Amino acid sequence: LHPQMKCTRCKALASFQFPFHNLKLCEDCLDIFFQKHVAKTIKKYQMLKTGEKIMLGVSGGKDSLVAWKVLHDLGYTPVGVHFDLKLGEFSERSVTACQNMAQRFGYELRVYDLNAMLGVTVQEIAWANRRPYCAVCGGIKRYYFNMLCKKEGFDCVATGHNLDDESARLLGNMMRGNQRYMVKQWPLTPASEDGFFSKKIKPLFLITEAEIKAYAKVHGLEVLGEICPKSKGATSPHYKAAMNLMEQHMPGTRRSFMMQFLGEKDGPPQAERLKSYCGSCGYPTFIEKCSHCLLLDRTKRWLQEKNIQTLAGQDQSS
Amino acid sequence: LHPQMKCTRCKALASFQFPFHNLKLCEDCLDIFFQKHVAKTIKKYQMLKTGEKIMLGVSGGKDSLVAWKVLHDLGYTPVGVHFDLKLGEFSERSVTACQNMAQRFGYELRVYDLNAMLGVTVQEIAWANRRPYCAVCGGIKRYYFNMLCKKEGFDCVATGHNLDDESARLLGNMMRGNQRYMVKQWPLTPASEDGFFSKKIKPLFLITEAEIKAYAKVHGLEVLGEICPKSKGATSPHYKAAMNLMEQHMPGTRRSFMMQFLGEKDGPPQAERLKSYCGSCGYPTFIEKCSHCLLLDRTKRWLQEKNIQTLAGQDQSS
Repeated sequence: LHPQMKCTRCKALASFQFPFHNLKLCEDCLDIFFQKHVAKTIKKYQMLKTGEKIMLGVSGGKDSLVAWKVLHDLGYTPVGVHFDLKLGEFSERSVTACQNMAQRFGYELRVYDLNAMLGVTVQEIAWANRRPYCAVCGGIKRYYFNMLCKKEGFDCVATGHNLDDESARLLGNMMRGNQRYMVKQWPLTPASEDGFFSKKIKPLFLITEAEIKAYAKVHGLEVLGEICPKSKGATSPHYKAAMNLMEQHMPGTRRSFMMQFLGEKDGPPQAERLKSYCGSCGYPTFIEKCSHCLLLDRTKRWLQEKNIQTLAGQDQSS
Repeated sequence: LHPQMKCTRCKALASFQFPFHNLKLCEDCLDIFFQKHVAKTIKKYQMLKTGEKIMLGVSGGKDSLVAWKVLHDLGYTPVGVHFDLKLGEFSERSVTACQNMAQRFGYELRVYDLNAMLGVTVQEIAWANRRPYCAVCGGIKRYYFNMLCKKEGFDCVATGHNLDDESARLLGNMMRGNQRYMVKQWPLTPASEDGFFSKKIKPLFLITEAEIKAYAKVHGLEVLGEICPKSKGATSPHYKAAMNLMEQHMPGTRRSFMMQFLGEKDGPPQAERLKSYCGSCGYPTFIEKCSHCLLLDRTKRWLQEKNIQTLAGQDQSS
C-alpha cells in the first residue's frame, strides 16, 4: 500500500487495498463497505427473515468473530456456540478468544464440552473407526449443531465460512469430480422438510479473507491466529494456496469463479426429505442407526476390547 | 532422487521418480514405459488408423520434439511442420532445434515463413486489430495447419500438448466458466464433415511434463528451453503454477482431474458441420469472410492509413 493512497469513497488516506474490487478504503469506509456487502449477501440469498433466532458457530478465529460482530451491527443477535475440544492450550486460547469477545461486546456465548457430551473423545472415535480426526470432528459438530438448534429453539445455524474457504472447497470438489458435494455448495442450505436438519447460512460466503482481516483490524478484534493442531494432513490448505496463487496474478479470479458457479445453479439445494430416524437418538438416518450412534457404539466396543478408560471430560493434552 | 533407489521394473539403479505413478525407473525402462504409454493413449482415443499421414506441428521445444521421436519409434512417420515467426534469435534457435532433430534422426521437416505467407506480420495483425499477439498467432497457425493438411494430402495434424498444458487449460476454463471451450477439450478432434477442418490429435495428452523431460534426457534431445518472447502477459502459466502446487502436495491430482473430466464425457466433440465458406479464400466461416481474411483486410487498411511498410518477409527483431 502506497502511503499516499487515497480512499476510493471519501478521499481520506487509505488503509486497505483490494485489487479484486479495484478499491482502496480508509478504516471508516471499510467498515461501511463491509457491513453493506454482508447485508447484501444475506438479502440476495434470502438467508434470514425478521426476528429469526441465529445460533452462530464460533471457533475463536477471525471468520467467526467477525461474523459475530457484523451480524450484531446489522441488527441481528446471534448467540455464539463454541465446542470446546479440550486440546490443551490451543483449546484454552480458543475458549478465551470467544469469551473475551462476548464480554467486550456483551454477546451471549454458550460453551459445550464436546467430548463430555459424547461420553468418549473425538480422538477415540477417530482411532476406533479409523477415520481422519477432521472428518469425525466435522461430522460430530454438524450433528450437535442440528440437535442444539432444534432443542434450544433456534431458527438456523450460521457459520463464518468465507469466500477463500468456499472457493478452495469448490476447486477441490472440481479436482476430484465430487458432483455430489458441489450440488450442496450454496450460501444457504434449507432446513429438512421435517425440520430436523436446521437451516444453515453462511453470511460471509462472498467475503474474502483479506476483507475479513481488514474488518477485524479496524475493530481491534482479538482473534486467535492459530490453526487447530489436529488439522495436519488436511488437503484444503493446498487448494487454498492454489487459489491464492491464481488470485494474486489474476485479481478477481476467486470471486468470478464462485459467481459463475453459483450463476449456473437455479438456487439453493433442495430441502431434504427424511423418512427414517435413528432408533437410539431419533436423528434422521437412512439405516436403522445414525452415523453418530454407530461411531459411538464402535468406539465404546473398541475401548472395552483394548481395556482403555476414555479421556472424555478431561483435557486431551494431559 | 535417492542414489540407491531401484527401478520398479528391473531393479537396476533408478534415474527418474514419478510420485503420481508411484514409479521409479531406470533410463531403459523409462523409454519402454513412455512408448507404451503413448501407444496406449493413441489406441484408447482411436487417434490413428494404419497408414494415415501425420503432419506434426514442431516448435523446437521439448513437447513437439519428443512427440516427433516417440511417434517415429512407434512406427509412424510424422512430417514436422515449423512456422518460422522471424522473431530474431529466438526464432533462429527454434528453427535450428527442429533442423538438428530432423538431420540427426532423418525426419522430414518443412519450414514455413508465416509472415511471408500472410503478406503482413503477426505483430501487425495484432496491432491493427487490437488483439493479443498469442491469440492472433494461435488462430493463424490453426488456419494454416488446416489449409496445409488438406492441400498437402495429410490425414491429420498432431501437436505435442501434454497433460500439464491440458490440465492447466481445463482449470482455466473451469475458473472462467468457459463451458464452450471445455466441450472441445479431448485428445482427438474429428475432421469436419466436409473434410475442411482436419482431424487433430494430441498423442501426449495424458503424459506429464516430468515424463517428457525424462524422455528427452534419455535420448539426448537438444530441445529449446526458452519460451516465446511474445508470450508475456499470458495467463496459462498461472494456471499451470496452481496445478503444479496441487500436484506437488497431492501427487496424482493432475491426472485424476483430467481423467474424471474425460470420464464424464461420452467421447470426442462432434464433427463440425460447415455450410458456409469464405468468399476470399474458401475457408469455412459463419459470415461472408473468414476471420483470417477479415484480420488481413483490416491489417492492410491499417498499414495503408498509417503509411507503414509491412515487415513481412524480414526478420522482426531488426
